[in-house]
Amino acid sequence: MKIAVLGTGVVGTTIAAKLVSQGHEVRIGSRTAGTGKFTFADAAGWAELIFNATKGEASLNALRAAGAERIGTKILVDIANPLDFSKGMPPTLFVKDDDSLGELIQREFPKARVVKTLNTMNSAIMVDPGRLKEEHDVFMSGNDAVAKEAVAAILKSWGWKYIRDLGDITTARGTEMLLPIWIRLWAALGHADYNFHIAM
Amino acid sequence: MKIAVLGTGVVGTTIAAKLVSQGHEVRIGSRTAGTGKFTFADAAGWAELIFNATKGEASLNALRAAGAERIGTKILVDIANPLDFSKGMPPTLFVKDDDSLGELIQREFPKARVVKTLNTMNSAIMVDPGRLKEEHDVFMSGNDAVAKEAVAAILKSWGWKYIRDLGDITTARGTEMLLPIWIRLWAALGHADYNFHIAM
Repeated sequence: MKIAVLGTGVVGTTIAAKLVSQGHEVRIGSRTAGTGKFTFADAAGWAELIFNATKGEASLNALRAAGAERIGTKILVDIANPLDFSKGMPPTLFVKDDDSLGELIQREFPKARVVKTLNTMNSAIMVDPGRLKEEHDVFMSGNDAVAKEAVAAILKSWGWKYIRDLGDITTARGTEMLLPIWIRLWAALGHADYNFHIAM
Repeated sequence: MKIAVLGTGVVGTTIAAKLVSQGHEVRIGSRTAGTGKFTFADAAGWAELIFNATKGEASLNALRAAGAERIGTKILVDIANPLDFSKGMPPTLFVKDDDSLGELIQREFPKARVVKTLNTMNSAIMVDPGRLKEEHDVFMSGNDAVAKEAVAAILKSWGWKYIRDLGDITTARGTEMLLPIWIRLWAALGHADYNFHIAM
């Protein structure tokens, strides 16, 4: 599949490398084109499916630069978090539990099929869930059932077993609000190699 | 031990019943005294350790009724959540990730040794973690290490194995913000018999 990964940070490059290793065609999108990277517009317009791996505070502007007409009705996998570092550490969220970044994106690009997922663990675990010994989960929120199935197929190809569909895009309020405890677990445990499991 | 449980709802009565079954002396505190229940003041003043199992929106007033001089330097186990049902369902939080109910209580009762715990699962699991087949965790936040050890001893006596001390009372921001996903998991799964496990 032709996949655009918007964002040149650790998350974006980790996901891009995984997709390339699986035989997908990948374009990394950035504000400016350069060696090994395209503009947001050139990556998004070319792709069949788009990952938003930009920083949460930059996501809407990155997607505006990609352009609504180029994003169209494509599946837009949003893995960003609305982290606000402007008030010091640890960061807070710039949208709380009465909205979400996933919904902000869906509202601004109403034709896009936004699927919020993968925003609740570090990037090494995203593409290699088997690196943890215990069972653990990835969550999914979105309004389009077919889009969620397509994203679940990618997640399964990466080794994900527990893919929890929480419902429509408003359920991204739940997963984005996991960041405050994720950050504090990082501090308490001294490492980031963990993830949430819903135990029953 | 002489333990006060403030709050006559399902959570309060479940915890009180568990403590009684273990041989503790228990007084349930309510706004008004009655059969099997004392006032907040009479329960808190008599006790050596206090559980706040009132509704989050009523917690500060309940503790004010108990009285700062009666609470004193006692261990105050806060298991309430700052849920706001005034804006419809699902509820939102009336303090978000830049404060917490645990901190509101600690600031208003600075001598009390507040320990935030048990606020991230249903009451049946609180007192009987073994009812879930899989391993799962309880979190703990508080400024006083000795108080956290004492509360951990109670949790261990109920069967808890994974007790995760996140740090000082500000880390209650993390556990209280688990409610938005907890509520949505309840809707997605169709039952509330689950809990979070930190998988590694």
